[in-house]
Amino acid sequence: MGTRCEGLRDSLSPIAYYEEYSHFRLDCLKIDDNKELSMSANEDLAKERARCDFNVSEITNILDGGIERTKQRKKIESIALSNGKCCDVTPEETLGPKERYENAIRKSCLYTKIVKDQVLTLTGLEVLGSNSSVLRRTADAFFKDISPFLLHLGMFVPTIMGQGTPEQQSYWLPRALDFQIIGTYAQTELGHGTFIRGLETTATYDPDTEEFVIHSPRLTSYKWWAGGLGKTSNYCIVVAQLYTQGKCYGIHPFIVQIRDEDTHMPLPGVRVGEIGPRMGFNTADNGFLGFDHYRIPRNHMLMKNSQVLKDGTYVKVASHSKLTYGTMVFVRVMLVNEVAFNLAKAATIAVRYSAVRRQSEKISGEPEPQIIDYVTQQHKLFVCIATAHALQLSSNWLWKTFSAVLADMRGGNTENLPELHALSSCLKALSTSDSAALIEQCRLACGGHGYMLSSNLPLLYSFVTATRTYEGDYTVLLLQTARFLIKAWEQAESGNPVTPTVSYMEEAVVGNKYKWNGSAEGIIKAAYYVAAGKISSSVTSIRKRMKNGKAFEDAWELTGVQLVAAAEAHCRAVICDVYRKETVRLTANSSPNVKTVMDQLNMLYLSHWALERTGDLLRYTSTTEDDIISCQQRYEELLAAIRPNAVGLVDAFDFPDEILQSTLGAYDGRVYERLMEEALKSPLNAEPVNRSFHQYLKPLMQGKL
Amino acid sequence: MGTRCEGLRDSLSPIAYYEEYSHFRLDCLKIDDNKELSMSANEDLAKERARCDFNVSEITNILDGGIERTKQRKKIESIALSNGKCCDVTPEETLGPKERYENAIRKSCLYTKIVKDQVLTLTGLEVLGSNSSVLRRTADAFFKDISPFLLHLGMFVPTIMGQGTPEQQSYWLPRALDFQIIGTYAQTELGHGTFIRGLETTATYDPDTEEFVIHSPRLTSYKWWAGGLGKTSNYCIVVAQLYTQGKCYGIHPFIVQIRDEDTHMPLPGVRVGEIGPRMGFNTADNGFLGFDHYRIPRNHMLMKNSQVLKDGTYVKVASHSKLTYGTMVFVRVMLVNEVAFNLAKAATIAVRYSAVRRQSEKISGEPEPQIIDYVTQQHKLFVCIATAHALQLSSNWLWKTFSAVLADMRGGNTENLPELHALSSCLKALSTSDSAALIEQCRLACGGHGYMLSSNLPLLYSFVTATRTYEGDYTVLLLQTARFLIKAWEQAESGNPVTPTVSYMEEAVVGNKYKWNGSAEGIIKAAYYVAAGKISSSVTSIRKRMKNGKAFEDAWELTGVQLVAAAEAHCRAVICDVYRKETVRLTANSSPNVKTVMDQLNMLYLSHWALERTGDLLRYTSTTEDDIISCQQRYEELLAAIRPNAVGLVDAFDFPDEILQSTLGAYDGRVYERLMEEALKSPLNAEPVNRSFHQYLKPLMQGKL
Repeated sequence: MGTRCEGLRDSLSPIAYYEEYSHFRLDCLKIDDNKELSMSANEDLAKERARCDFNVSEITNILDGGIERTKQRKKIESIALSNGKCCDVTPEETLGPKERYENAIRKSCLYTKIVKDQVLTLTGLEVLGSNSSVLRRTADAFFKDISPFLLHLGMFVPTIMGQGTPEQQSYWLPRALDFQIIGTYAQTELGHGTFIRGLETTATYDPDTEEFVIHSPRLTSYKWWAGGLGKTSNYCIVVAQLYTQGKCYGIHPFIVQIRDEDTHMPLPGVRVGEIGPRMGFNTADNGFLGFDHYRIPRNHMLMKNSQVLKDGTYVKVASHSKLTYGTMVFVRVMLVNEVAFNLAKAATIAVRYSAVRRQSEKISGEPEPQIIDYVTQQHKLFVCIATAHALQLSSNWLWKTFSAVLADMRGGNTENLPELHALSSCLKALSTSDSAALIEQCRLACGGHGYMLSSNLPLLYSFVTATRTYEGDYTVLLLQTARFLIKAWEQAESGNPVTPTVSYMEEAVVGNKYKWNGSAEGIIKAAYYVAAGKISSSVTSIRKRMKNGKAFEDAWELTGVQLVAAAEAHCRAVICDVYRKETVRLTANSSPNVKTVMDQLNMLYLSHWALERTGDLLRYTSTTEDDIISCQQRYEELLAAIRPNAVGLVDAFDFPDEILQSTLGAYDGRVYERLMEEALKSPLNAEPVNRSFHQYLKPLMQGKL
Repeated sequence: MGTRCEGLRDSLSPIAYYEEYSHFRLDCLKIDDNKELSMSANEDLAKERARCDFNVSEITNILDGGIERTKQRKKIESIALSNGKCCDVTPEETLGPKERYENAIRKSCLYTKIVKDQVLTLTGLEVLGSNSSVLRRTADAFFKDISPFLLHLGMFVPTIMGQGTPEQQSYWLPRALDFQIIGTYAQTELGHGTFIRGLETTATYDPDTEEFVIHSPRLTSYKWWAGGLGKTSNYCIVVAQLYTQGKCYGIHPFIVQIRDEDTHMPLPGVRVGEIGPRMGFNTADNGFLGFDHYRIPRNHMLMKNSQVLKDGTYVKVASHSKLTYGTMVFVRVMLVNEVAFNLAKAATIAVRYSAVRRQSEKISGEPEPQIIDYVTQQHKLFVCIATAHALQLSSNWLWKTFSAVLADMRGGNTENLPELHALSSCLKALSTSDSAALIEQCRLACGGHGYMLSSNLPLLYSFVTATRTYEGDYTVLLLQTARFLIKAWEQAESGNPVTPTVSYMEEAVVGNKYKWNGSAEGIIKAAYYVAAGKISSSVTSIRKRMKNGKAFEDAWELTGVQLVAAAEAHCRAVICDVYRKETVRLTANSSPNVKTVMDQLNMLYLSHWALERTGDLLRYTSTTEDDIISCQQRYEELLAAIRPNAVGLVDAFDFPDEILQSTLGAYDGRVYERLMEEALKSPLNAEPVNRSFHQYLKPLMQGKL
């Protein structure tokens, strides 16, 4: 096992371990012990860092969005992490569901105090906007899973900001931001998620009392999923079908008090509880909520966009759809950023572990190689680093685009919104599904140890795979994008101008095949031609089906599989394009080696996707077998070129151990020691013999059961 | 929401629900209540079953392996499930880790008694062999996760059977089969899994006392992962490096007592404990195990294959490798069967839910369609049914092949073993990774509700994704297969005969491209040509690298990515081939409609994989763009053709609700009622206000924290 393990043997004999911990109690293992033991870092990781040939902090700054952002982030992190309050004595996952929730509430309150007293004063509400990633980073140190307060600042406050009148904002926001009340956002019901027009909760206006009557007519109309709803929140934004003067005006948001502010008891007519164990989010008390003719004051309807007057008259103020579009897009930009961040964590864990882990024998007698030296392992991991960069830069770019469109909207110009909406839809779909798949690839690349919760990889996956579903299901979002693409294609066909992100159609619609060339720009152009080709074949299929007598909607539906693939191809081309352009732009003034490694990662990403889509390239461009073979060669050369910088690249993500929370990914690489330390915290190890032996095992073994 | 929800509204008002359960305690919800409520089945499912056009039990018999096997299975199931002992009052996942383990021990003992007293007497040890799937089915009703006893009958007993001398067997087997002792199998260590030659635990023979001294020299040599090791087992097969007369003879198995039979205390010199929370298997007390110069009698080494005489002389009896090959192959056959079974569960859950769930509006005003009517949903689900069939039939076929080779081996002929080993390696790799991916696809196809643990889909995934790693990692196994394929290719090149499963090479090595034809046999042949093409390019890459001065092993290593892809293509072709042949064979005497639907599923599988690999088809066969388009059309026609029989097809898997354990997949389709019933069992719902409110929330909200 080479010098590393000799080192281990000296530093800690297993017996010493066992004697120290065999009768330990959960409260006797302080985080400080880990800190102490951390002194002797893993030698292989030290070597890796020594051989890294670029300035790590340069790339950190690029990913943060500039050196100033890095400084601010580090400042906030040091505030949040300095006092050690973020660390659990007992690992969250060794507690029962109830204790886990109570521990999460404890930490949420501690964390909230830190944010209120120290962070907000530092940054102002900016941390809730484009900068919210900084808050999330620090929050992840406090919550291995998630805080029950997530939707208070995440949805409750923003909804009041976005849809409340000035009066409503001045009444509710101070109380909410001061945490005098804690709220959440309840839209999804047991029976309806995707199709929000189908929501069944009703809000019927009663002019006599000037109240709305909120009601859940049936089981399927129960609200379901809202985070922090089950036990924590005493207020809630409820989305319900508005009825007034005998007419239904569709869904609107209402602020509803659900628990007594003093006793926290559910109020009469309110049915609220927790929805039970989930794949993830198990500290967020996701809840159900039903109403039995529950009355709220008229002015608890959020009335910025539409109002109900005292007499029950319905008045539309602003175009509801356009504005909710805005919120949706905002949330999606945040999500792309968030999954990029979590993928970066997984890549950090897997790459560091792969530098520490040694296995097998390449040449007999030689020391076992680090598993990161296997090309198959590099193939699994390096694309994860590249994708984290691609998504991070795409999300920063999307944020800029969004801000611009928002500015236009304030000026009354909403013509760019459909394009932005289509773009944010497919970017949300692909970034969440790519990240989930690659996080799982990182976990599998860590073998059995990746299956340990203490690696943090399973939790990262549970968390990120959920983003593929909420805020717009993968397939539904890509079909929305496809609608936009088909319209654009028809415009291009008829020679009309199309918007920037689909301008490639104007050239592709002519129908000649693009001649492959191995350059980055060439691969991107080919990707656009692939998208065009798939859109074109979808159009053909739809028209063929209509010619055979199908109505458009049926023809569209039957072509769904191809439409999803077309939207995915379009989005992939956009990501490749943005990733390339942003890389070039952001490294313009970087030192040569940073330029080189960022370019290698970008080329790796482009070649990877070209090789994943050889069928499309051969079908929709004039790529040849030789082109593919040389692309494969190029890809394998890039793996070798990136290898020496791999650890440096994940170090550049700059995750403190408290945020990474992984036995396999800690900076010092003390993988096996940490695995054992965590194992010894298992409640089952608190006593040498479990009571079930006397109760069941012994009688069974003695044939007396 | 159409009549279904009207029905719901009448049958149970949410208020009734809440009043009934709002102050419930965990022990007040008996399974009988559910049974009672189950009377009114979902109307849509009833309609689906009415329109199914084939005899469901015919397909059940085919999958079971004959009507007799079905009868026996049902008999065993009724024995195991009849007494209700399999049902938990409190859902496993609402307990803390320790309570979950204790509950698992309780049930393991109950289940063991049933198996000992009633099942074994019925079937004999046969249930441990090819028929073990029946035991697993019933066990799954008792353990939502897994039993701590799993490796006792799964590995401890079989290893003694396979590697113990007759004397050792007659001493140990009766005690083990009577559960007087409970054992497990400890091979993997913290530092070594894949590379077993690198295991670090030592067993040094001491001729003076005629004992072996078992020792763990360092932390990385601790055994890690063995199921049932942490708290349950008092005996353990330990795989260790055998040292005698100053020489190391490599790894050998030893029977080691680790706990006192009476007190269950770990014996002096034994360090044993549980390894902490995992992604799954959390009721199996997977353990760690270390030794401090721990002594065991000489005859506790399993000596069937090699012996250490009293004086310490080492004697090799049988070819160790060949025989362990046999065990490995057997375990892999079982695994293919097991993942097919779990994929069938996931498909059942997702298809039934998709028939119950209604969402969106195809035509405005019309009732919302069942989501199974969306072609995108059919695209996700029907391939899961087909794959479950493909893997089930492949595993049955592999079992027959294995038995034949085993018979040859007893006759001293081991020449077919390398081929069988290569075959079982890649089948294990592909079946586990396909199943895991498709189970996840089923979960995602169920949207948010699939994320609830009560759907059972997350647990099915956690369980199956582990099989991708243990008993041979996906990548490692495919590289093993690749070694066999490259050798075979070189033989074919030099005109020498090759073994049956690679006979396609003899034709392909000539180098002419196969002309695509849409028939099943045509697609299968194309798949073989794709495999040949990928093997050939791998060979070219390796030779090119060697020409550039690389040693063979380095050239091989650098070509790893292509070699894995080649092995995967080979295995895919074999599965397609076996699935086709077995379908034709097994439906030879079936009724016409069963023939039709089984053929449709098979064609769906073949077309699906053709469309997934268009790049390979265009590169390695003379498939044209038109061929691909018609294949896509054919595929979409098959989705439509299978749609009316979808529910019938999953009913044919014949899972009792107790085994399926899913709120979304139960036979009666009472999805929303079950979701709410399970939610109300959450410990957080046992009291209206959680204590953390008084402790933390209230002080925070009043600014007094």
